[in-house]
Amino acid sequence: MKRIGVLTSGGDAPGMNNAIAGVVKAAEAQGIEVYGVRDGYKGLINGWFEKLDSKFALEIISKGGTVLGSARLPEFKEESVRQKAVDQLKAHDIEALVVIGGDGSYMGAQRLTEMGINCIGLPGTIDNDIVSSDYTIGFDTALNTVIESIEKVRDTMQSHNRAAVIEVMGNGCGDLVTYAAIATQAEIFSPSESKLTVEQICEQAKKFAEANHRSLIILVSEKQLDANELAKKVEEASGYVTRATILGHVQRGGRPSGMDRYLAFTAALYAVEKLIEGKGGLYIGLSENKLVARDIESTLNMPKPDKTEFIEKIRLLNAKISK
Amino acid sequence: MKRIGVLTSGGDAPGMNNAIAGVVKAAEAQGIEVYGVRDGYKGLINGWFEKLDSKFALEIISKGGTVLGSARLPEFKEESVRQKAVDQLKAHDIEALVVIGGDGSYMGAQRLTEMGINCIGLPGTIDNDIVSSDYTIGFDTALNTVIESIEKVRDTMQSHNRAAVIEVMGNGCGDLVTYAAIATQAEIFSPSESKLTVEQICEQAKKFAEANHRSLIILVSEKQLDANELAKKVEEASGYVTRATILGHVQRGGRPSGMDRYLAFTAALYAVEKLIEGKGGLYIGLSENKLVARDIESTLNMPKPDKTEFIEKIRLLNAKISK
Amino acid sequence: MKRIGVLTSGGDAPGMNNAIAGVVKAAEAQGIEVYGVRDGYKGLINGWFEKLDSKFALEIISKGGTVLGSARLPEFKEESVRQKAVDQLKAHDIEALVVIGGDGSYMGAQRLTEMGINCIGLPGTIDNDIVSSDYTIGFDTALNTVIESIEKVRDTMQSHNRAAVIEVMGNGCGDLVTYAAIATQAEIFSPSESKLTVEQICEQAKKFAEANHRSLIILVSEKQLDANELAKKVEEASGYVTRATILGHVQRGGRPSGMDRYLAFTAALYAVEKLIEGKGGLYIGLSENKLVARDIESTLNMPKPDKTEFIEKIRLLNAKISK
Amino acid sequence: MKRIGVLTSGGDAPGMNNAIAGVVKAAEAQGIEVYGVRDGYKGLINGWFEKLDSKFALEIISKGGTVLGSARLPEFKEESVRQKAVDQLKAHDIEALVVIGGDGSYMGAQRLTEMGINCIGLPGTIDNDIVSSDYTIGFDTALNTVIESIEKVRDTMQSHNRAAVIEVMGNGCGDLVTYAAIATQAEIFSPSESKLTVEQICEQAKKFAEANHRSLIILVSEKQLDANELAKKVEEASGYVTRATILGHVQRGGRPSGMDRYLAFTAALYAVEKLIEGKGGLYIGLSENKLVARDIESTLNMPKPDKTEFIEKIRLLNAKISK
Repeated sequence: MKRIGVLTSGGDAPGMNNAIAGVVKAAEAQGIEVYGVRDGYKGLINGWFEKLDSKFALEIISKGGTVLGSARLPEFKEESVRQKAVDQLKAHDIEALVVIGGDGSYMGAQRLTEMGINCIGLPGTIDNDIVSSDYTIGFDTALNTVIESIEKVRDTMQSHNRAAVIEVMGNGCGDLVTYAAIATQAEIFSPSESKLTVEQICEQAKKFAEANHRSLIILVSEKQLDANELAKKVEEASGYVTRATILGHVQRGGRPSGMDRYLAFTAALYAVEKLIEGKGGLYIGLSENKLVARDIESTLNMPKPDKTEFIEKIRLLNAKISK
Repeated sequence: MKRIGVLTSGGDAPGMNNAIAGVVKAAEAQGIEVYGVRDGYKGLINGWFEKLDSKFALEIISKGGTVLGSARLPEFKEESVRQKAVDQLKAHDIEALVVIGGDGSYMGAQRLTEMGINCIGLPGTIDNDIVSSDYTIGFDTALNTVIESIEKVRDTMQSHNRAAVIEVMGNGCGDLVTYAAIATQAEIFSPSESKLTVEQICEQAKKFAEANHRSLIILVSEKQLDANELAKKVEEASGYVTRATILGHVQRGGRPSGMDRYLAFTAALYAVEKLIEGKGGLYIGLSENKLVARDIESTLNMPKPDKTEFIEKIRLLNAKISK
Repeated sequence: MKRIGVLTSGGDAPGMNNAIAGVVKAAEAQGIEVYGVRDGYKGLINGWFEKLDSKFALEIISKGGTVLGSARLPEFKEESVRQKAVDQLKAHDIEALVVIGGDGSYMGAQRLTEMGINCIGLPGTIDNDIVSSDYTIGFDTALNTVIESIEKVRDTMQSHNRAAVIEVMGNGCGDLVTYAAIATQAEIFSPSESKLTVEQICEQAKKFAEANHRSLIILVSEKQLDANELAKKVEEASGYVTRATILGHVQRGGRPSGMDRYLAFTAALYAVEKLIEGKGGLYIGLSENKLVARDIESTLNMPKPDKTEFIEKIRLLNAKISK
Repeated sequence: MKRIGVLTSGGDAPGMNNAIAGVVKAAEAQGIEVYGVRDGYKGLINGWFEKLDSKFALEIISKGGTVLGSARLPEFKEESVRQKAVDQLKAHDIEALVVIGGDGSYMGAQRLTEMGINCIGLPGTIDNDIVSSDYTIGFDTALNTVIESIEKVRDTMQSHNRAAVIEVMGNGCGDLVTYAAIATQAEIFSPSESKLTVEQICEQAKKFAEANHRSLIILVSEKQLDANELAKKVEEASGYVTRATILGHVQRGGRPSGMDRYLAFTAALYAVEKLIEGKGGLYIGLSENKLVARDIESTLNMPKPDKTEFIEKIRLLNAKISK
């Protein structure tokens, strides 16, 4: 193999740049050239390629987001569009591809593999919503950002004897909420996998108010409730002055944490090894604290683990009020 | 003087705890006891006092918010209510008071002084909206928080070729927006003192889009526009996918910065000196980089400086697009 | 069970407070009282106990170090000394104990168990030197601190075309060095498990100098070399102006990271469950990303995994210079 | 004026990049081209110039250090060497120069001005050792870094009932020590302007030990004492286990703070305005919270303010032990 490509796809995540750096370093060490693709699959069909080297790798490792850029390209589902990508890759002698992104980007990687370009996927998303990996690249950094934000809000709620509703990202996966609830002792939390109703949240808030608990943090995963509406309801029910904060895109950026860098870099080395072995259609995950390469197809069909029991256990602890 | 009190009032701000610590340390060194008042004027009329010492001071200096708490008490405008406060203070032999808070809390301090309890105010608010002080306690920390948040959002906007509308606090003062715009090179910004119309913002965004500028940060002071509405308009006008983020209460908390601690602590020492001199009805400000004590009345009537020329100058620079 | 104790022992680590909080919350939910022991085994023999509750738990979760304190007590190896501890615990009706600390504290936990007080250990140390756990409580936070420090040094080395020798903690385990080397692309690194000689380091530095590489980061685990001496040698050999930085105790403190909080809290819940089941003499580890409880004896005798191959692989990548 | 240059000189400081960005933005807005000079005066005599634009400015504003680099060039004192610089500048049609750096770089700026190239200096150094400016670019960021490091060390000293000697930068100016002592309530501190003897420090430490004070932070400015030696003496005198930490180059790097960015950027705008007015041989300072341009000669001869009284006052407060 003489030349491989690397692209990022889907929502950006801290650590994507470390995955890119890992691909560059691993390939370069084997005498393989690496071309970065600008703006994901969109750059692939347009031939937006540029040569990357170790110096570039060093420059990007502490940056948030993805320096290669990412863009949506729904048309990539069509074979004729993918054929353009294959043509571009062949025209540039790029034989194989590392695709860093969420599960939305794997099908494309699978299809390209079937069309003769070996592709290997890396799990890049803050949402931790990829079943076949214990953790995804970006989750750790986002978790730290979320915790820091919650604790800043806690400062002011504690100062003023108030309640806060805080909406956290996760795209169907409540891990950011659950982990942050453990880390911050958020009194009430409603992750995607085990939602509370507005009534349950209000009922619980009322109990804390009756016990003169000083401040209340209520975490909710995105896409389940209107945070501002919920804040009003909580205020009515409990008497706490209640404010809503939607953390939003602040959660997606920032310097990657140590563990995100480690996961991204080592997973990238593994991906390059597999490409050198002539493999494709694989997706790298972290399973039982070890890197594994699984068929993309099987990965997409893995059942979600049931987290409700664990969530319920933590929920009871956090809801406990000292007398 | 044997005994003084200290309270925090209005919105909490990082550095308030360092002001409390300064009062404690300065008074203790002179053999004066310090009593902290819980929850501002509300605690004052209820006699929620507790003795503070150097050990307490050491424990609070790196904490956000105010450990003494703050609460609203509109009734404090009534003399009969204030009389209760005076009675409580006298019952506890507390002869004078340091009031840490925004300008909403000064009138109370002035009135209490007139009723025989010398009060001195310290400028505690993240908004930097106190005309008689170059900087307020909390502004510096909040500015750093705002910048960090903006740059996290920039990471993701840059990754995706998008625009972001970010709403920043300030309560009528646009300094957080203006300083953050300088610090982050936000392409478009609309501080309270020199607002842009929706049309102007959209027009400007369009120019950046036409120049293929990769990402756009649009900062707006709170209370002037609906950030989500603005984001929609910007998207329509420019073609950038545009997201709104309301930073909210995240801006108010967090570990105080070095300069907030320095200002808070030294201003507190100065306030205690003035109380020992038998002064009251004063408010401490930072003027030309020196601590000054001014009559509260005169402080409240100081004219706002005109910042529009400076803002306009920065605006032109930030709006400049490299060819 | 009516009452349990919790103590921290050995070097402090971020996350210890979250482990304490977890013990408190888990026990309280079962109606069990928790007593904190001041200053480790020393407090145990002196009866320095205090009741802890959920409110206390909430106050400590974002603090570095251990709020319970830790102290050395070599005499605890003697049975007569341990008997005092057992007597104190019995006098206070404390039936079982959670011991948070490094492997130096497990033998004490084992011996106490044998004397009738069930003890369960939690792996609290930044060094990641406990073989039976993939990660220890504190490692993640320390890693982030180390990376941040290295990148600050990199800024100035890059500005001045210099080299830096940076000494990192680890107490016989080089993981902080290895992970940080991956995260920061440190050009040269010498972890405890696979040390480089001074000559090898100098030789390598010379190659970078000859290739006009702008800056050099050389990471070494503590206790293997004199960092200042090494810096002189590197300067002589390579021509880079070279500075040494010993990160020291900065690495041990700081707000615990999300993952340290998560590991600490969930491991604490698990420990309390085991105590309730009547178990003792166990040590909780994270193995294949799952919490496991193993006999302390077997834990102490587990063989160290061989990390040299992995280290060598990374070393080759980091040493690669782009042409 | 068609074209100006910008260089950084002396020790790097956070905010230097924001000063560069300010020069670029201000000049570009007036249709003036900006050339960055690599590695300070060294690049000047070698003609290491590169064109900078707004896009470049946006990329560097959150980076620590100086992206232009800095290098020592003692020979610049010789006129023949400076003549080479003048020749290079003329060959590239660069008419004037902004020099960002400490006072070591001003004489060069003055001499170049005398040789026909108008130069204006900006105060870039973390040391705050430039008498003619209230604050220097980089001081604020370094102060926050120092505080954060001290508080991490405090965590572990507090956990273990220990004392720490921490050596802080400052190059003859003790402000980093004094401000950090105020911010962290360091019990003992010895800034350059008002040093303590080893005996005084030990005597003081002993008093804290006798009062069972839990932990001790002892801050000393660099270049006055051997920190490790001092730690031994303190341990002997007080009984505290005592550790030394030399913060070193960690203090010089890192993302610039908001106020450093603000000072750097606005001072740069001011410098460009002065160059456009045809001025040279000036140095920009912050005096009474306003930007001022003074003759370099007069600046270098300004008397140092006497800070001993202020330091002594703080020292007494920090040394006070609660009973």
